[in-house]
Amino acid sequence: MGMLDIIATKRDGGELTATEIEFLIRGYVANEIPDYQVAAFLMAVYIRGLSEAETVALTMAMAKSGDMLDLAEIPGVKVDKHSTGGVGDKTTLVVAPLVAAAGVPVAKISGRGLGHSGGTVDKLESIPGFQAELSATDFIANVRKIDLAISGQTGNLAPADKLIYAVRDATATVASIPLIASSIMSKKIAAGADAVILDVKCGRGAFMPDLPAARVLAQTMINIGRSVGKKTVTVISNMDQPLGAAVGNALEVKEAILTLQNQGPADLSQLVLALGAEMLVVAGRVDSAAEGRQLLEKLLTTRVAWAKFREFVVAQGGDPAAVDNPKLLPQAQFVLPVRSCSDGFIVGLAADKVGRAAAALGAGRQKKGDIVDPAVGIVLKSKLGDKIQTGRLLAEVHANDLLKAEGAVEELISAYEVGPGPAPPKPLIFQVLP
Amino acid sequence: MGMLDIIATKRDGGELTATEIEFLIRGYVANEIPDYQVAAFLMAVYIRGLSEAETVALTMAMAKSGDMLDLAEIPGVKVDKHSTGGVGDKTTLVVAPLVAAAGVPVAKISGRGLGHSGGTVDKLESIPGFQAELSATDFIANVRKIDLAISGQTGNLAPADKLIYAVRDATATVASIPLIASSIMSKKIAAGADAVILDVKCGRGAFMPDLPAARVLAQTMINIGRSVGKKTVTVISNMDQPLGAAVGNALEVKEAILTLQNQGPADLSQLVLALGAEMLVVAGRVDSAAEGRQLLEKLLTTRVAWAKFREFVVAQGGDPAAVDNPKLLPQAQFVLPVRSCSDGFIVGLAADKVGRAAAALGAGRQKKGDIVDPAVGIVLKSKLGDKIQTGRLLAEVHANDLLKAEGAVEELISAYEVGPGPAPPKPLIFQVLP
Repeated sequence: MGMLDIIATKRDGGELTATEIEFLIRGYVANEIPDYQVAAFLMAVYIRGLSEAETVALTMAMAKSGDMLDLAEIPGVKVDKHSTGGVGDKTTLVVAPLVAAAGVPVAKISGRGLGHSGGTVDKLESIPGFQAELSATDFIANVRKIDLAISGQTGNLAPADKLIYAVRDATATVASIPLIASSIMSKKIAAGADAVILDVKCGRGAFMPDLPAARVLAQTMINIGRSVGKKTVTVISNMDQPLGAAVGNALEVKEAILTLQNQGPADLSQLVLALGAEMLVVAGRVDSAAEGRQLLEKLLTTRVAWAKFREFVVAQGGDPAAVDNPKLLPQAQFVLPVRSCSDGFIVGLAADKVGRAAAALGAGRQKKGDIVDPAVGIVLKSKLGDKIQTGRLLAEVHANDLLKAEGAVEELISAYEVGPGPAPPKPLIFQVLP
Repeated sequence: MGMLDIIATKRDGGELTATEIEFLIRGYVANEIPDYQVAAFLMAVYIRGLSEAETVALTMAMAKSGDMLDLAEIPGVKVDKHSTGGVGDKTTLVVAPLVAAAGVPVAKISGRGLGHSGGTVDKLESIPGFQAELSATDFIANVRKIDLAISGQTGNLAPADKLIYAVRDATATVASIPLIASSIMSKKIAAGADAVILDVKCGRGAFMPDLPAARVLAQTMINIGRSVGKKTVTVISNMDQPLGAAVGNALEVKEAILTLQNQGPADLSQLVLALGAEMLVVAGRVDSAAEGRQLLEKLLTTRVAWAKFREFVVAQGGDPAAVDNPKLLPQAQFVLPVRSCSDGFIVGLAADKVGRAAAALGAGRQKKGDIVDPAVGIVLKSKLGDKIQTGRLLAEVHANDLLKAEGAVEELISAYEVGPGPAPPKPLIFQVLP
């Protein structure tokens, strides 16, 4: 067995054994297999695909390439939640404390983002004092104490995935369903939770452009979960337009706080309840999603969820004053309005363009190691289906640099598509699988 | 235009523009595009293929990536000859002086080989004193003076091809027809000849395993030649068993000398005449291949070709005594017989295994920079169709290391396949195209 044979097998559409896949992953992490061989392999995978067995083998090899978190000390069913990534997706900030408020332990490892805005960790770090890098010991202790911890990389989880993702990013091999599925699931498996709820985004702001592709990705991850004994539920949700109104780190924290206080945007609240209800079901806390939803709604209206969020912020060193009064969160110097120059209905609001506008302001990273500006971003004031007229406020650009702000305004104007009548609305949640 | 877009286009089976292909080749040679991006691109090319226009663009971009030899100072039509590579292929050693003896200038740039035995340059260097590295000036001067020069790399010809070949070799993307065709033709174009005769090998010892594949490769190279105004003729020849009897550098020189003295093996003589006749036709020296063949046969029987070879050796510093008396060429310490242990007919003589046996003795390079042992190799004493009995001498192993010799003996025994009756013979020359 050698790397050339492995590449040739996949190149010709053959199926690799688990041993061959482990050989590749181990050799790559050990720096014995060069990037260019992995690049050729990934292109062959992109074009030829991977069988279910190969996908599982790749996932497990990547999961086992570094530390495997052991959450056995935490009693109960530990539920993880993951989104395939969308614009304005601050769901974790809301759903994690909400589910924890229902008494289900949430031990969440999150990333720092590349792209339009930061990851969950970047968003939380816009809260003054918030400590997102916990040791494994502190991480587990916090979950035991208050049912909730969110941490950036704890230990060295799935280093193979990190290496392979970097090559994919540079070789046009990101958008491969088995590679996306194994990347996500390897990290979830290494992070040790018993069950995973996956928010599979679908639409122009997401990896998966349409529902059939999103279904295949969802099913692939469900199959991986099943084969490794990890309950996996997927919620396929719409990402044609950004979720909620805010895109940008502190702006999203502010919106998450409002949502936890039951005053958030309707779409974000709806998605949070759907995801949270599934989490309660897989945790065995409730018997049905409907029951879960009722319980969670109550935790929102009674402000129990909000109190849990506050407790969580304090437990990780954050300043409670800043969440009690979000004006104390980082604020951008300039706020520029974006106004409509036509009449009609908003029939398109390109999530990808909004994401690019936010990234250009400094809300996201263009490349690894870039510093994220917590204050900047975009607040959408008009969304799909809204009736508008000339001069109507479409969005606000929050910027620390006027030149960048103007670029963002232009990008945003092109993101809005106006038609004479409203477009038929699409559901926010397409499907829950399995 | 960026490298990611280029990779993605080919990944999805699209067609690249000449500008995009030039961007890639220039960027790679300039070290601005990393190996892993080229590796992913090459795998996409391997699987998706290249159009005729893309293949021509790639060929030209690689040809122009370094020096372009200008042979205009040499009067007449300069003909180059190239083999796609086979085991025991010493054709150039015979055909180049033969054609030069007919008054057609032969300006041949040859490589050093990887694999079973050395390249033409390595073979010639087994002649004591022979100087295979000529400056462009000396190279052209020699062709003007005696109609013949064979040199290793003169200047920096097609460096892009060298870089890309190294990546292909390490990423299981060698056996792609457009990549093979553009690699060969880029070097031929950079080497400046007016016409090219290509010996396309076909069979188990060759890149092309069967006739249909060999035909596609031949046609691809003819198309490239046509589109750049270089007359290109291909001779598709059989490489199921090694050509001639000798495999190994000095051993092949010895066999070439015998062939130039009209005492060589029948298959080698036949192929040399076929290739040489086509060279005379494209050079305008004769009107038909049949006429060319007659002329060449006369040059062999009258020893004019042999005298030309001797003149050529002397012109490049070689010791004429060593070619007059080949016993003065490097000799191996040990000669081990390989004998048959069964009765019947030889129905298979795996060229690839004979090649591996020779390489393991040290006749070829396993990797770039290895030193080739000029003395070692194999002399086949029985070939396809021969009737044999137990104890019959099948081959001789010429070795400088007894342990390696034993390995070669074992490999050779497995290369011979014996059946109860003779297998239907295959022609040596399948087809001449166009």
